[in-house]
Amino acid sequence: MWNNKQMKHLISMQDISKEDILHFVDVAEKIETGKLSPDLNGQLAALLFFEPSTRTKFSFETAMKKLGGTALSLKDAEQTSLKKGESLHDTLMTISQYVDLVIMRSPIEGSCRYASEILNIPVINAGDGANQHPTQALLDMYSIMKTQGRLDNLNIAMVENLKFGRTVHSLSQALSDFSPNLYFISPGHLKMPEHIKNDLKSKNVNFSEHDKIEDVIDKLDIMYVTRIQKERFTDPEEYEKVKNLYIVDTPILKNVKDSFKIMHPLPRVM
Amino acid sequence: MWNNKQMKHLISMQDISKEDILHFVDVAEKIETGKLSPDLNGQLAALLFFEPSTRTKFSFETAMKKLGGTALSLKDAEQTSLKKGESLHDTLMTISQYVDLVIMRSPIEGSCRYASEILNIPVINAGDGANQHPTQALLDMYSIMKTQGRLDNLNIAMVENLKFGRTVHSLSQALSDFSPNLYFISPGHLKMPEHIKNDLKSKNVNFSEHDKIEDVIDKLDIMYVTRIQKERFTDPEEYEKVKNLYIVDTPILKNVKDSFKIMHPLPRVM
Amino acid sequence: MWNNKQMKHLISMQDISKEDILHFVDVAEKIETGKLSPDLNGQLAALLFFEPSTRTKFSFETAMKKLGGTALSLKDAEQTSLKKGESLHDTLMTISQYVDLVIMRSPIEGSCRYASEILNIPVINAGDGANQHPTQALLDMYSIMKTQGRLDNLNIAMVENLKFGRTVHSLSQALSDFSPNLYFISPGHLKMPEHIKNDLKSKNVNFSEHDKIEDVIDKLDIMYVTRIQKERFTDPEEYEKVKNLYIVDTPILKNVKDSFKIMHPLPRVM
Repeated sequence: MWNNKQMKHLISMQDISKEDILHFVDVAEKIETGKLSPDLNGQLAALLFFEPSTRTKFSFETAMKKLGGTALSLKDAEQTSLKKGESLHDTLMTISQYVDLVIMRSPIEGSCRYASEILNIPVINAGDGANQHPTQALLDMYSIMKTQGRLDNLNIAMVENLKFGRTVHSLSQALSDFSPNLYFISPGHLKMPEHIKNDLKSKNVNFSEHDKIEDVIDKLDIMYVTRIQKERFTDPEEYEKVKNLYIVDTPILKNVKDSFKIMHPLPRVM
Repeated sequence: MWNNKQMKHLISMQDISKEDILHFVDVAEKIETGKLSPDLNGQLAALLFFEPSTRTKFSFETAMKKLGGTALSLKDAEQTSLKKGESLHDTLMTISQYVDLVIMRSPIEGSCRYASEILNIPVINAGDGANQHPTQALLDMYSIMKTQGRLDNLNIAMVENLKFGRTVHSLSQALSDFSPNLYFISPGHLKMPEHIKNDLKSKNVNFSEHDKIEDVIDKLDIMYVTRIQKERFTDPEEYEKVKNLYIVDTPILKNVKDSFKIMHPLPRVM
Repeated sequence: MWNNKQMKHLISMQDISKEDILHFVDVAEKIETGKLSPDLNGQLAALLFFEPSTRTKFSFETAMKKLGGTALSLKDAEQTSLKKGESLHDTLMTISQYVDLVIMRSPIEGSCRYASEILNIPVINAGDGANQHPTQALLDMYSIMKTQGRLDNLNIAMVENLKFGRTVHSLSQALSDFSPNLYFISPGHLKMPEHIKNDLKSKNVNFSEHDKIEDVIDKLDIMYVTRIQKERFTDPEEYEKVKNLYIVDTPILKNVKDSFKIMHPLPRVM
């Protein structure tokens, strides 16, 4: 299924070329419309989720099943391992003997990259801390294609929690080859991290930073709203300050373009 | 497998006709004796269990597997969702995109009905609070048929925890089309709820309420004993008062009819 | 797959003959090299794990899947059951109605034997307290065969936690028919239990007890290192005293035989 035959892991959108993205979007469309029925032929994936997850884990389980494989969870990954003091290295090496593929979520940035370096089976990053969430980004690209009919030259705002929101990190990098105009809207303390902005600059991507949705709403094709993730704040007061800052309501939306869509990776909180 | 082609959900025994019950019992008998082997052809069910469960969850998982499908659990449904503050609505809408069927258990009465109203895939109620447990009732009907050879005109006592026991609520309604004589035996505080009794009255079902097993034991075909559910008591002293009230022992059983059977949905506690 | 057609359960290595071990090792080798592909034809195993487990549980799940069956977990076995006060007997009787095979881990010695006595489907012991872990022992025998080319006449040291280490109990019994020289190396409080030593004596197995690895290291074909299991100590100070007693480092290993291998059932802690 990979366009680039060298590619084995899915760790960061930085590793994925424009051609890869177009290929994935194309394959997804063919699967959804019944033109393609990939068969994993009973292959096994290990779900190593060192962080709680509802939707992501369930979506991998159902996806593997629908593709003719099976995803098996390392039960209570975090607790069990911590209890016995086992190292991530040993867990990965052992588990990789049993399966064909590792799908991993971790609160620690870079841990999926580490896994991909020590294992000789494919590793998929299902979210590593505040860093990357590439499968969500690929799904978002597919949703954008479905709703807009194209990926190029879109005006896209990313709103709210840009500092800790791994989905917007991955998505802005995914869009970088498609000449977007990106608007980053967030309170001062939750701005897009410098390393993401530097990466976009080096690729000559147009982006600008704003305080208020109202400044850009009328130009937008897509407003991508993220959740303020309480669990990534070390100071609860900091969370209380920002949690209700951006409320998307009808008055704000009165002059939007016809193409305008709101995207939200869930969960909605307020 | 449904007799009534309109029926899509299984939420309450009040929705199930006499014909449906006879059909289910017939299908179950054919499956058990090998005359019928339904094939779900890889269909996926989501198990949304917002309440702990041992047997019920496991039985749905094995049943789906034996019928050629797969049941996948939303891991730690309650905790994960509560942690991120997600709404039941969003969880249901998302999950329903991945699967063909939702099987749901919840501590909140009416939540399965709500799910069936917002989803366009079938919903099975696997127990909602103290309200209903229709699959248990259908299984009980099948067990009654197997042990008694008929469903009609039986003398059935339901004992102990009739207020909070969702299985006896569903079962008494399931029996209501089969001309039973029902005997409700419970301490004063755990009597069958008024709305169930009103429903039975409106269907002209014979029932009477009693304090002691001894009053009716010699007439019974079936004594259906439920557990005092500690977790549904708000006052632990209330629980201590009633927990050992009904002990079924040999002296009580000395004059029972030949047809007499005890049924217990488990778990046994004392 | 069983050589001895009478054998149905796998509870203790004491039940397994030399012929059975050779048969298992042979079957495992044929499966690994693709000469044999057993098909469980959709059979279901229940995983009853009343104790946390990472690798063992996952390995049974993947093994069942690769052999064409499915292993389903009784979710949160311990907690759920304890919460409702259910007995092990009732849990086992109920679960055994749904599946073809029970795989059980428990903190209580002898509980798997009990299960095998009340159930009429096969029971596999996946570890019962500090007692036995026969599938680990069979895997170890296979690993020994692979690395040494034989099972007979080997010099094998078992190091560290011999009192509570169920894997070394099972493994020493597994080796007892293969004329080994066993060296038990442990601090005084963690010595091999008397009943295991008595069993070995009755089978005329050569074994000796030592304080230091250095005393025997140069004779060894295999050094089997176990973990000090913090969770089996009632006194934390006792644990602190012994936890770093045996550190296997390069100086110790400088004069080992060519055949020398270290085995460790994981997890590594220090």
